[in-house]
Order: sequence, then structure tokens, then C-alpha cells
Amino acid sequence: MAEVKVHGIIAGPFNKRVELALKLKGVEYEYIEEDRSNKSAQLLKYNPVYKQVPVLVHNGKPICESLVILEYIDETWGDTCPLLPKDPYQRAMARFWAKFIDEKLLGALYKLVYGKGEEKEKGWDETCELLKFLENELQDKKFFGGDNIGFLDIAASYIHWFGAIQESLGLELLTEEKFPKLSKWIDEFLSCRIIVENLPPREILVPLYKAQFEAAIK
Amino acid sequence: MAEVKVHGIIAGPFNKRVELALKLKGVEYEYIEEDRSNKSAQLLKYNPVYKQVPVLVHNGKPICESLVILEYIDETWGDTCPLLPKDPYQRAMARFWAKFIDEKLLGALYKLVYGKGEEKEKGWDETCELLKFLENELQDKKFFGGDNIGFLDIAASYIHWFGAIQESLGLELLTEEKFPKLSKWIDEFLSCRIIVENLPPREILVPLYKAQFEAAIK
Repeated sequence: MAEVKVHGIIAGPFNKRVELALKLKGVEYEYIEEDRSNKSAQLLKYNPVYKQVPVLVHNGKPICESLVILEYIDETWGDTCPLLPKDPYQRAMARFWAKFIDEKLLGALYKLVYGKGEEKEKGWDETCELLKFLENELQDKKFFGGDNIGFLDIAASYIHWFGAIQESLGLELLTEEKFPKLSKWIDEFLSCRIIVENLPPREILVPLYKAQFEAAIK
Repeated sequence: MAEVKVHGIIAGPFNKRVELALKLKGVEYEYIEEDRSNKSAQLLKYNPVYKQVPVLVHNGKPICESLVILEYIDETWGDTCPLLPKDPYQRAMARFWAKFIDEKLLGALYKLVYGKGEEKEKGWDETCELLKFLENELQDKKFFGGDNIGFLDIAASYIHWFGAIQESLGLELLTEEKFPKLSKWIDEFLSCRIIVENLPPREILVPLYKAQFEAAIK
């Protein structure tokens, strides 16, 4: 039995966070594909609260919620490629902005993608406003974590999906002109071999989202 | 200038989390009362994203979001009264359930309190369902943290407010019959001197919530 298992869905941004962290740390794992429309008994047993991926199972014990899992991975396999910085203030900032991505930015993006009329416009404005915070947080660093990929970079990997969603919908929101630092960051991030080898490429994501959005309109 | 400052509101459950953690660790701080309807320039500067309390300011540096602050406090003043357990799996569980309280339980409670008709009923059912998870998580421990008050106990201090909200609305949801372990836990929690001395008593909270709910109906 594999010691480490990850339950995920194909091209799922949240299980990919977990997988990227494991890959960066060189931890071998078994990937278990879940069916979104027919969740396995195991998934429901492991995550009775949210009933969703990702779940990391380590020596038979399940851990849910991607940011909680990232901290667990960092604490369990701490020596290789530490994800969180050592300084408590820097750690707090990484946690704060990761939470911000999940709670604020994704909420605004959801409005932009699925909202109608005024709601959609509001989603656009909010997403722009919130991306500015992240642009500002990057300052002149190569990665959010400084010279190396860290906790917040992995949490922010959602921006790769954002690019695909944007392309699928024909939006021009996260552009080099509007967000030069975030644009440079995603290029740096995707130039890391382990990252690019383990993220679904845009060519896979764009048609996937196009189909999803078309189905949502029908 | 005080080294540690906490921006909060009177009887605010989230700033009380921060204050309880500081009190348990014996860290002196200056409390700065904010006006919910007229937020100070300082609060807006310190927390431009959420524009809300609590903010912990340590040596001039602001940290926002109560759970992020609790981790910072634990990492900065770690020796006295550690809040998170040492074991990575136990730490993950504490983080998971704290997040669950803020994201799931409070959402259901909000529906129960402010929802109308069917929405309210749904709020009741969901709150019951979610409280069962916490009841189950307690098992036969004195505190969520084991023999001592820890991270999840402080996050769960919201249950004290829950009691006051329930009384204000004449609900009988979190009762000894339905939730014996949670009821015992709150008694244990409130029997700790530092906790009871630093939480607003029910006699303060109940009229405060009654006034708030009456104003919401008008």
C-alpha cells in the first residue's frame, strides 16, 4: 500500500496544489482520480464535511482542504524545499494572502464568470481590485516566497487556471499591461521544470473550460 | 508605544480570540476600540482588504484575520501555553476544524439567524448537522486540545456567542440533551479563570444581540 495518496480530479487546481508541493519535496504518492458526479465511498468517508477533493491520505490518515494539507506536507517533509518561510511575520503574510486567494479572489472570479449583467460587471471590477493587492504583494521579488517557490506561490498557482478561464471567455483582465508583476511571476513560475511538468497545459484547460461554460449557459 | 496592540470591537468574537490567546500566553497588549460604523484611518490602513477587526499590531507591523493571528501569536510567544499541538496530523486537524467553524458553521448560523421561512429552516438543519461534527471531534477529551486549552478551543470560543444568540432568539438548538459533549466543553472552557475573566458574560451579550436582531427586523 502506498504510504501517500492524493484524491483529486483531472486538472483540478486544488489537488494540483497538493501534488506540486509533494513533487517539489520529492515525495512519491499514488494519485486516485475521483469522479465529480459520482464520488467514491472512500472520498465521502475521508471528507464527510466538504465531500470534495483534494484529500491527502498519509499512512491511512486523511487530511482535507488544500491549504491545510500544504502546511501538513511542509511540517512532515520539512527538510527539502521548505514552503513557509521561517520568520513568523512572513509566515503570517503567506497564510493571509493564500486565504485571500481562496476567499476573496475566487469569489470575485466566480461572479465574473457565472454572474449576469450588473453582477458580472461587479465581478470584473472586484477581480481587478483584488489582483492589484497580489501585484503589490509581489513587489520586486521573483516569487512570492522570495528567490524560491513557496507556500503562497503554490496557493497562487490558481492564476494559471485564471489565464485559461480568461482565454476561454475572451476576457482581457490579467494582462501584461495591467499586471506586469503578476505576468512576470507566472512566466517565472511556469519556467520551473517541476511546476510545468505537473500542471495541465493551457491547451488542455482552455477547451475544458469552454465546454464547461457552454454547458452552464444552456 | 506599546509593542502589541489589538484593534477590536466591544464583545467582538473574533478579536476576543486574539485577546484570549495573548492572555493565556501572558503577553501584555493595548486594546484599541474601533467603531464599526466609522472605521478609523488606522484600521483601514492596516487591513485594506477586509477593513475589519481584529488586527494585531506587533512592533508596528499589522496582521489580520483571527486564525492567522493565532498562529502568529503561537509562533512568536511559543514557550508559554502552546496553542497548536506538536504532531503535524493533530495540527492539521486543529486547523481544519477551526476553518470549518469560520466557513461552514458560521455560514449556517447566519442563515438560521437572518434567513426567512425555508432558508431559516435550512439554517437550523445545517447548524445541527455541523455541530454534530464538532461534538464528534471532542470525543472524550476535556478540551479540543486535550487536557489544555489550545488553538481549536479558542477558535471554538464562538460557541459562547452561539449560546447568547440562541437565548436572544429563544432557540433551543445547542442543548445539553442534543449536544452533551459540547455542553460539557463550554462549561469546562468557561471554568478557566483567564477565559471567563476575558469573555463578555451572557448578561452583556444577550441584550446586545436582542437589540441587534430587533433592529434587523425593522
